[in-house]
Amino acid sequence: MSHTIAVIEGDGIGQEVIPAAVDVLESLDLDLEFVEGDAGDAVKEATGEALPQETYDLAADADATLFGAAGETAADVILPLRDAVDSFVNIRPAKAYPGVDAVRPETDLVFLRENTEGVYSGHEDDLSEDLSTLTRVVTTSASEKLAEFACEYVDDGEGFSVVHKANVMRKTDGRFRDAVVRVADEHGVDTDEVLMDAFATRVCLDPEQFDTIVCPNLAGDVLSDLAAGLVGGLGLLPSANIGDDNALFEPVHGTAPDIAGQGVANPMATVLSAAMLLNHLGYSEESDRVETAVETVLAEGPRTADLGGDADTEAVTQAI
Amino acid sequence: MSHTIAVIEGDGIGQEVIPAAVDVLESLDLDLEFVEGDAGDAVKEATGEALPQETYDLAADADATLFGAAGETAADVILPLRDAVDSFVNIRPAKAYPGVDAVRPETDLVFLRENTEGVYSGHEDDLSEDLSTLTRVVTTSASEKLAEFACEYVDDGEGFSVVHKANVMRKTDGRFRDAVVRVADEHGVDTDEVLMDAFATRVCLDPEQFDTIVCPNLAGDVLSDLAAGLVGGLGLLPSANIGDDNALFEPVHGTAPDIAGQGVANPMATVLSAAMLLNHLGYSEESDRVETAVETVLAEGPRTADLGGDADTEAVTQAI
Ligand SMILES: CC(C)[C@H](C(=O)O)[C@@H](O)C(=O)O
Ligand SMILES: CC(C)[C@H](C(=O)O)[C@@H](O)C(=O)O
Repeated sequence: MSHTIAVIEGDGIGQEVIPAAVDVLESLDLDLEFVEGDAGDAVKEATGEALPQETYDLAADADATLFGAAGETAADVILPLRDAVDSFVNIRPAKAYPGVDAVRPETDLVFLRENTEGVYSGHEDDLSEDLSTLTRVVTTSASEKLAEFACEYVDDGEGFSVVHKANVMRKTDGRFRDAVVRVADEHGVDTDEVLMDAFATRVCLDPEQFDTIVCPNLAGDVLSDLAAGLVGGLGLLPSANIGDDNALFEPVHGTAPDIAGQGVANPMATVLSAAMLLNHLGYSEESDRVETAVETVLAEGPRTADLGGDADTEAVTQAI
Repeated sequence: MSHTIAVIEGDGIGQEVIPAAVDVLESLDLDLEFVEGDAGDAVKEATGEALPQETYDLAADADATLFGAAGETAADVILPLRDAVDSFVNIRPAKAYPGVDAVRPETDLVFLRENTEGVYSGHEDDLSEDLSTLTRVVTTSASEKLAEFACEYVDDGEGFSVVHKANVMRKTDGRFRDAVVRVADEHGVDTDEVLMDAFATRVCLDPEQFDTIVCPNLAGDVLSDLAAGLVGGLGLLPSANIGDDNALFEPVHGTAPDIAGQGVANPMATVLSAAMLLNHLGYSEESDRVETAVETVLAEGPRTADLGGDADTEAVTQAI
């Protein structure tokens, strides 16, 4: 079966790491067709729009999308793109790789972040000279959908942690927590509840006590970036935004303006995002091969400058 | 001048660490009058109310309040108490002490957390079977008031970081950021802006790049607890809720049900909170003496079990 992959490089090192990941995908000789779209600061400069309608449609119509990074316009690009692929969960693994400097080398977490609501609702108003409000939205349906996904995602017997702030956001996060725990109970999946602030302390002190974390949108944003800090930075972290019929894959890092254009960016986060894409499309064996290749190169080199090496993007990509 | 201090032990180890801190305050021979109030799980059990009106009034009428911890009812006690003292800023230092196991021993941060609004507005509604909303509130006036405080708080020339998520919460956090930066500019105080998620990564990787952090309510809650993880846990962290004519001081830790009632709780976070109280009332020399005493005991012992020692609360309190 042929799959169409939308490819959106965006700005900065997006233009280097995306071609690298596409090279890796092409080397696998699968029936993948790549179609390219533009988005980001440069497009906004040229056309007034950070995410042109064509690019939105490209992502919406493709079987999967691979996106690099956008600069100042990041929110204007990534939030609509998540919407274009109808993504209800953002999967964010945060794993410390052997041989990579990490604050907490034993970290191995996966965040399953609700990807449609919470404070990302987009409903904000300036009500007076002094006052603005934002409507934080939580639905049982979105919470249940996330929980159903989480129950399939975790291995049998493993369970997951539900992270929330229902002691303060009683109705909204209370609804989230109740829905997620109820669905997990129905599936016989164990859960433990952790308040968002307590999670932040505990994950620093002992990341091994956690495994899979299911949480609302902003909690997932902040806590997965916290976990990124524990594993040594955003440089190696992939992510997936999953919808029913579609999905979007992106490295967690940004455009890295300091090194952009020099061909020395580390392509690994994007290659690992491509591995998640392969897995999503059913190529699980190829996905494992790509991930193993990245791990082997991490162990044996070559390495880019962010990991203390002096290899360029091309050399690392070829090695993978 | 005589000062009235409301003393609220609450539950669990609150009943051990508060008397310890009061002992330390009494040893200074200042003109302080202590009045006691009840709050927490046990009071709720007995009376149906976690925070009786008398206790609320006691805190509202006192010059300052020292609060221990509450169990299940924590939010029902602490949020109204913050309101009773009209507190607009929550000061949360997170400093790693020499000789105490820390994930990041170089951490020395102070969070100035907005303490009245954001998602703590209390405005939540169940709008349908499926949907709940929360109204996140941000005002220019509260943001400016926090910023004025921050400008006085930081030493000249030092500046502070403004942490927010205005790329997503454009109107609310945009208002917060604009107000804080404008006030700082007017006072000639330097600021740098950091997105909340980026802060979470960066503070793990290199806490020394930050110093004083000014942020909205929930950001302050989560990020200060993250910093607590970096310094080795909540066990030593004091906090202050400052109002115009009143203030409330509390350790960041909770009721520690596992060790409550045994007389072995570490009183240091509460004693350091009492030091913040002294400073607030103008006894800055006594405040410094208490802080130095805690540091000396940390360096030379005795230590409670949480710090690897076997001393009890009483022994550590006497040593201080
Ligand atoms: C760019 C921004 C809107 C985005 C988010 O908040 O989701 C980013 O931080 C992320 O996590 O992908
Ligand atoms: C108990 C809870 C309501 C409180 C908060 O969220 O402010 C606590 O986490 C804190 O930080 O003091």
